[in-house]
Amino acid sequence: MRIAVVNGPNLNLLGTREPSIYGSQRLDEIEARISALCSDRGVELEWHQTNDEGEFVDLVQAFAGRVNGAVINAAAFTHTSLAIRDALLAVQTPFVEVHLSNIYAREPERRRSVLADIALGVVVGFGPMSYQLGVEGLLRHLGHCGD
Amino acid sequence: MRIAVVNGPNLNLLGTREPSIYGSQRLDEIEARISALCSDRGVELEWHQTNDEGEFVDLVQAFAGRVNGAVINAAAFTHTSLAIRDALLAVQTPFVEVHLSNIYAREPERRRSVLADIALGVVVGFGPMSYQLGVEGLLRHLGHCGD
Amino acid sequence: MRIAVVNGPNLNLLGTREPSIYGSQRLDEIEARISALCSDRGVELEWHQTNDEGEFVDLVQAFAGRVNGAVINAAAFTHTSLAIRDALLAVQTPFVEVHLSNIYAREPERRRSVLADIALGVVVGFGPMSYQLGVEGLLRHLGHCGD
Amino acid sequence: MRIAVVNGPNLNLLGTREPSIYGSQRLDEIEARISALCSDRGVELEWHQTNDEGEFVDLVQAFAGRVNGAVINAAAFTHTSLAIRDALLAVQTPFVEVHLSNIYAREPERRRSVLADIALGVVVGFGPMSYQLGVEGLLRHLGHCGD
Amino acid sequence: MRIAVVNGPNLNLLGTREPSIYGSQRLDEIEARISALCSDRGVELEWHQTNDEGEFVDLVQAFAGRVNGAVINAAAFTHTSLAIRDALLAVQTPFVEVHLSNIYAREPERRRSVLADIALGVVVGFGPMSYQLGVEGLLRHLGHCGD
Amino acid sequence: MRIAVVNGPNLNLLGTREPSIYGSQRLDEIEARISALCSDRGVELEWHQTNDEGEFVDLVQAFAGRVNGAVINAAAFTHTSLAIRDALLAVQTPFVEVHLSNIYAREPERRRSVLADIALGVVVGFGPMSYQLGVEGLLRHLGHCGD
Amino acid sequence: MRIAVVNGPNLNLLGTREPSIYGSQRLDEIEARISALCSDRGVELEWHQTNDEGEFVDLVQAFAGRVNGAVINAAAFTHTSLAIRDALLAVQTPFVEVHLSNIYAREPERRRSVLADIALGVVVGFGPMSYQLGVEGLLRHLGHCGD
Amino acid sequence: MRIAVVNGPNLNLLGTREPSIYGSQRLDEIEARISALCSDRGVELEWHQTNDEGEFVDLVQAFAGRVNGAVINAAAFTHTSLAIRDALLAVQTPFVEVHLSNIYAREPERRRSVLADIALGVVVGFGPMSYQLGVEGLLRHLGHCGD
Amino acid sequence: MRIAVVNGPNLNLLGTREPSIYGSQRLDEIEARISALCSDRGVELEWHQTNDEGEFVDLVQAFAGRVNGAVINAAAFTHTSLAIRDALLAVQTPFVEVHLSNIYAREPERRRSVLADIALGVVVGFGPMSYQLGVEGLLRHLGHCGD
Amino acid sequence: MRIAVVNGPNLNLLGTREPSIYGSQRLDEIEARISALCSDRGVELEWHQTNDEGEFVDLVQAFAGRVNGAVINAAAFTHTSLAIRDALLAVQTPFVEVHLSNIYAREPERRRSVLADIALGVVVGFGPMSYQLGVEGLLRHLGHCGD
Amino acid sequence: MRIAVVNGPNLNLLGTREPSIYGSQRLDEIEARISALCSDRGVELEWHQTNDEGEFVDLVQAFAGRVNGAVINAAAFTHTSLAIRDALLAVQTPFVEVHLSNIYAREPERRRSVLADIALGVVVGFGPMSYQLGVEGLLRHLGHCGD
Amino acid sequence: MRIAVVNGPNLNLLGTREPSIYGSQRLDEIEARISALCSDRGVELEWHQTNDEGEFVDLVQAFAGRVNGAVINAAAFTHTSLAIRDALLAVQTPFVEVHLSNIYAREPERRRSVLADIALGVVVGFGPMSYQLGVEGLLRHLGHCGD
Repeated sequence: MRIAVVNGPNLNLLGTREPSIYGSQRLDEIEARISALCSDRGVELEWHQTNDEGEFVDLVQAFAGRVNGAVINAAAFTHTSLAIRDALLAVQTPFVEVHLSNIYAREPERRRSVLADIALGVVVGFGPMSYQLGVEGLLRHLGHCGD
Repeated sequence: MRIAVVNGPNLNLLGTREPSIYGSQRLDEIEARISALCSDRGVELEWHQTNDEGEFVDLVQAFAGRVNGAVINAAAFTHTSLAIRDALLAVQTPFVEVHLSNIYAREPERRRSVLADIALGVVVGFGPMSYQLGVEGLLRHLGHCGD
Repeated sequence: MRIAVVNGPNLNLLGTREPSIYGSQRLDEIEARISALCSDRGVELEWHQTNDEGEFVDLVQAFAGRVNGAVINAAAFTHTSLAIRDALLAVQTPFVEVHLSNIYAREPERRRSVLADIALGVVVGFGPMSYQLGVEGLLRHLGHCGD
Repeated sequence: MRIAVVNGPNLNLLGTREPSIYGSQRLDEIEARISALCSDRGVELEWHQTNDEGEFVDLVQAFAGRVNGAVINAAAFTHTSLAIRDALLAVQTPFVEVHLSNIYAREPERRRSVLADIALGVVVGFGPMSYQLGVEGLLRHLGHCGD
Repeated sequence: MRIAVVNGPNLNLLGTREPSIYGSQRLDEIEARISALCSDRGVELEWHQTNDEGEFVDLVQAFAGRVNGAVINAAAFTHTSLAIRDALLAVQTPFVEVHLSNIYAREPERRRSVLADIALGVVVGFGPMSYQLGVEGLLRHLGHCGD
Repeated sequence: MRIAVVNGPNLNLLGTREPSIYGSQRLDEIEARISALCSDRGVELEWHQTNDEGEFVDLVQAFAGRVNGAVINAAAFTHTSLAIRDALLAVQTPFVEVHLSNIYAREPERRRSVLADIALGVVVGFGPMSYQLGVEGLLRHLGHCGD
Repeated sequence: MRIAVVNGPNLNLLGTREPSIYGSQRLDEIEARISALCSDRGVELEWHQTNDEGEFVDLVQAFAGRVNGAVINAAAFTHTSLAIRDALLAVQTPFVEVHLSNIYAREPERRRSVLADIALGVVVGFGPMSYQLGVEGLLRHLGHCGD
Repeated sequence: MRIAVVNGPNLNLLGTREPSIYGSQRLDEIEARISALCSDRGVELEWHQTNDEGEFVDLVQAFAGRVNGAVINAAAFTHTSLAIRDALLAVQTPFVEVHLSNIYAREPERRRSVLADIALGVVVGFGPMSYQLGVEGLLRHLGHCGD
Repeated sequence: MRIAVVNGPNLNLLGTREPSIYGSQRLDEIEARISALCSDRGVELEWHQTNDEGEFVDLVQAFAGRVNGAVINAAAFTHTSLAIRDALLAVQTPFVEVHLSNIYAREPERRRSVLADIALGVVVGFGPMSYQLGVEGLLRHLGHCGD
Repeated sequence: MRIAVVNGPNLNLLGTREPSIYGSQRLDEIEARISALCSDRGVELEWHQTNDEGEFVDLVQAFAGRVNGAVINAAAFTHTSLAIRDALLAVQTPFVEVHLSNIYAREPERRRSVLADIALGVVVGFGPMSYQLGVEGLLRHLGHCGD
Repeated sequence: MRIAVVNGPNLNLLGTREPSIYGSQRLDEIEARISALCSDRGVELEWHQTNDEGEFVDLVQAFAGRVNGAVINAAAFTHTSLAIRDALLAVQTPFVEVHLSNIYAREPERRRSVLADIALGVVVGFGPMSYQLGVEGLLRHLGHCGD
Repeated sequence: MRIAVVNGPNLNLLGTREPSIYGSQRLDEIEARISALCSDRGVELEWHQTNDEGEFVDLVQAFAGRVNGAVINAAAFTHTSLAIRDALLAVQTPFVEVHLSNIYAREPERRRSVLADIALGVVVGFGPMSYQLGVEGLLRHLGHCGD
């Protein structure tokens, strides 16, 4: 069992970027936490971050035949990238969409996701905990949990 | 520590109602599961369901001074009830909005929530698991978990 | 064979309420007429009126396993109540939507119904006769008529 | 007492055209049924079908001084023809708008009628029965029925 | 001479609910003030509050033949309830719409009222004083004031 | 010098059709008046009326090489017929758009013309006088008047 | 019999201002022409031009009890001035709206007039001739012409 | 204590202008009434009317350091004048917006105010009484009343 | 194997009509070219042009049982005719939509087709070559080509 | 070489008006600075401010034949005044549009300018420096600078 | 003579990606077919695919001075990339836009292309054949074909 | 003191690309000019151009702790890139948005910027001079100028 987490643009700045909105935890701290959670469950994890839409598409295409499920935080690409949507439709890997901040409480253009309707589920607004809940939801959906 | 779960209209029919969308689990089965989860964590749970918007408002008003957090599945009221929004604003109890089905993959009027922007977080599309993830997110937010 | 007619808010005032729009017949006069029509056809009729959306939902939920078809005049709820829509979707009872007045000739918000697309048929604008035509259409659809 | 039924474009193909939407009855079968109904009531019937908007306008204009009421199924013209609307306004013949299929459950452009607000009533979605209900509603409106 | 004041959902929480928006006066304090004002003018007052739309409709229907005028603060129902609008249209009792907060300075969905165009007048934004001005405007309209 | 006047659907009913909007003069009375005006000016007139969009297009196509200018009252086609627009663009005959009633004071769909922006001028709302003003404006534009 | 012509902002620059749109005739040349036309008909003419909306309102208010009809070219104010609309509604003087250029062939904001629906008639696009046709239409409407 | 009332375009015609909408009282009669009310309360009143937006801006600017509160009936300018809005924002004088007629029951463009969200309160639809209620609301807000 | 080409309004004027947009080739020249192409492939061709929507519908209805595929240039009807759409849906003949000019580079109302979503393919903007490409695409789709 | 700066409504209050948005510099301080800049470059400057749209139009009309270029801060008129737009189109004087505050970060109605598309350039958000940059951009465009 | 074909994101997955929409042919199979077609015509072909918008822009920029025409299938970028539009505008290479699937029969955001209005022609919905028709249309436009 | 200028897609083609819109100066000529200006002021300049959104984001992220201010010409990305917006929000470096052409006079999608509301200022339409004015505005804002 292998899952992937793909993080979109500017998430590499987490912790320094607008902490009142995104919190003070760094992305590698979140990765460490999710990594521990996965190894507890005997699940392999791959963790990616990219500021480039083309690279994001390549990362999703690489799921095919290798990854059982994914957690996607496409950040700014969430609202505009039909290319990432098409990649996710193409590989048919079940995925959970997560967001750190409550996107419904922000600017109108952040309220709409072009990915959400093809996601297995969506988790929004719990800060770093969104990743954890997203992974747990994904694993249970994949039938991979003791619960 | 006490949390409340309030379920909106037609959720009493769960299991019989459009199982291809809402799944085959009954609401009392979900309640049993969440009840077990809470008693494991030493948290008191109260569980409500109502088809009546006025009663829903009363249930939310009753949170004040008694309930530490809530999970809200307002069902059809999610998309139209400013009265429930006002009740949640009035009591200021932190709450998580949950939905069984992926509301972003359904009719346009189900894609918009009048509650989401004042929620602490939103969990959508995991079926009965949405409640579990919502409760876990809520408890962690309230600082009440071993994790 | 049993059918139900459910009337929404303010229809209890029929005959006194804006007679230029809704006519001068009282709701019990319409009920009497429909009752006679049904007993002629050997069909049992139950007749309801409520000003309360929650009670309307309960009445629809109670169709399950008991009622073969329904005539729905949801009045003001026609245009906004997703809860009643969900109840009708849940019980899957075939129903006809009726309106006394020609809703297409009135204010814009009265021109749109959130129930019509899941109705078996719609009858609009014939005054009290709308009920009669609706019942006849329903009975024929249920295969219950001499014609 | 004389009534007219005017059918719009492609209704001549009824029975062969998209039977899952429009049913398998041919237009002449519907005509026969309505014809019988009218002769039972001692009412003369004229029955028209045309694929041409200009001819449809001519048929409506010819109501003047000759026809007491009409049933109009303008098909595709329902949604766009101001010319037919103007003809109906000009002759002032009371008319019922009917549709075989439930136009509210179809493409958005089929949900709006440019005729409905000037109709005496509207009957939608009962298949061939829509004509029958429409004629009955019309005759009762004209004071021409035993009921 | 008898007037009624009907208050909508969550106004029972006045004084505790978002005081920066709604002020710190409780609803019974406002009632006391209006009660005094009315008894000074020799006018009978009835005062209602409900969180339930159906009950609100019942309260309005009960105006008929008993109440000369009303002050309506429908709160969240102001923006969505066609049922209350229909009840007010049915009883034809002259009424004033009042709001504590300046609804034009708030979220877009609070800027539109489905009642205002059938009100005798509207008073917005004066806090508890809105009731007083509303009652005075109503009484003068009813020809019942020393002025 | 030859001009054409083309009248659209239902204008053949003028005088009988909604006289409060369109006046009580018949179309042949208007024709007689315009005919006199033209013969005074030594201009040949051809006068057409049709309820059929296809025939209207044919009439406009026939302008080519024969007619110096036109007055167009396309009635209901004014608001929807791109085919007539294309015919007028094709023949490049200068034309004046006229309307009997004030289309800006009527239903929204009558306020927009798909012909007006390619007309030489537009005359609206003067009743039968609109034709006269339109012809005068056209003749002066064509350099054909004593003035 | 007395008529007024009121010209709005920038029409004082006529002849120099964008001649490809507005033509090369100066406003005083148009005035001379209209003045001659009026004196031929035994009608008194007053002619105004102002760049100031307030002054335009004053000029319209001054019609009351003095002027039988008016020709209004409100230029840029046509599209935005509710104050001029209110003044015209207040004095109830019949008026014709005229425009030199074809406003339907220009920017979208020039296609809508806030005056047209209360005008007796509208004449658009004939250049200086628009005034002449407008005056003739007005005089005939006022019953003041030999025709 | 000094308050100002500023009246916008065409209010000088009150009493003669569309009495079915605005009533038959003249503006000086309203002024006399408000003047009496103010002198009873020991408040100085200044009363203005202008048809000119620039002059209206000047009048508002002159509030600074001289006037404690204002009642504004901007009439047609209510719906369009950002310049008056900016002047009111600049002087920061608390003001009440009033309207004689029920602007919510009129044309759509009269339903929106560009001033209301920065007003202390709004009073609509009571005819001349709107001024009185507005002044009373203003004085109480300024702490200037016996009540 | 038999295919039909149906041309809509004003295409009979090709070569003379706005040559900068539609080119200088006449419709019979295009027909000759397509005719040669078809006879090379051993395919029978029928070629139609009509300015009348009703006749266009008749021509499409006549495909049934006779024609294997069609090329449709509905010209102005492309953007508005639900009747032609319904006829094409009824006969279920595979068809290619073609346009001479690039409709995406023209007025907004020419950018939308009510036929395109039910076409097998669409070819736009190649001038007369659009027909050739459309026929080739159609024949290959029908499995009728050497390629 | 002569340039003009025209300032719109409420800019006379600069320094006192909402300093958090517009800064604390007075308009005459800005004028002094721009005046010095111009005299350094050997350019004559005229400086205007008006709260009146009609006077603004007059000021722009007066550019003709006298002024080589202009800097326009139309303030609230920026968003609504077609009359000023027409005046600028009429005189054809090259002009730069400037704003003190960042209009894109404010209310929606301040984000749109009816002048910007006919300006030579636009400078927004630099506070009083906007004028300086605007003048420099204008002079360089006019070929009048040492650079 | 040299032409380029540039394929956008996820087209590298063709054959495996949603075959019900995009068909089962791989991109290299299509390339082989087009390559053969070109070498038959003595035309050099370059064939590109990229998931990266920046690289797509670079590929288009490289057309300048080297490529006579292009076929562009920008896939998801079709609907959003102004950068690719700008690159195509900059190099001025004539190009044909092609799509495998019928984009008009899919989600609304796929119906609009930001490239189509600057294309020489558009071919939509023929599956792999779209490329062939596109190349033929391009070559004929470039005057490079035996036909 | 160090400032950065970042140029977006296709600006590398400046001088050759649509010179009627963007001018004939090459990007390195503009760079040379800005470089000279900066070295005059003792300011270090870094100058970037990229066609790739991901690289653009990287360049902005690299501002942190190194660059005091920036001039951003995001070209086509201006209108769509939330990723660049987020990068600018994250680094909090003050920046000026510049455009060579007058974006308000172009296609509607070029009129809206997703960066402007978070910019310190915006300079539009002065051609290469826009950079110079932008740099001057930036330096003055940073307190770095002799003026």
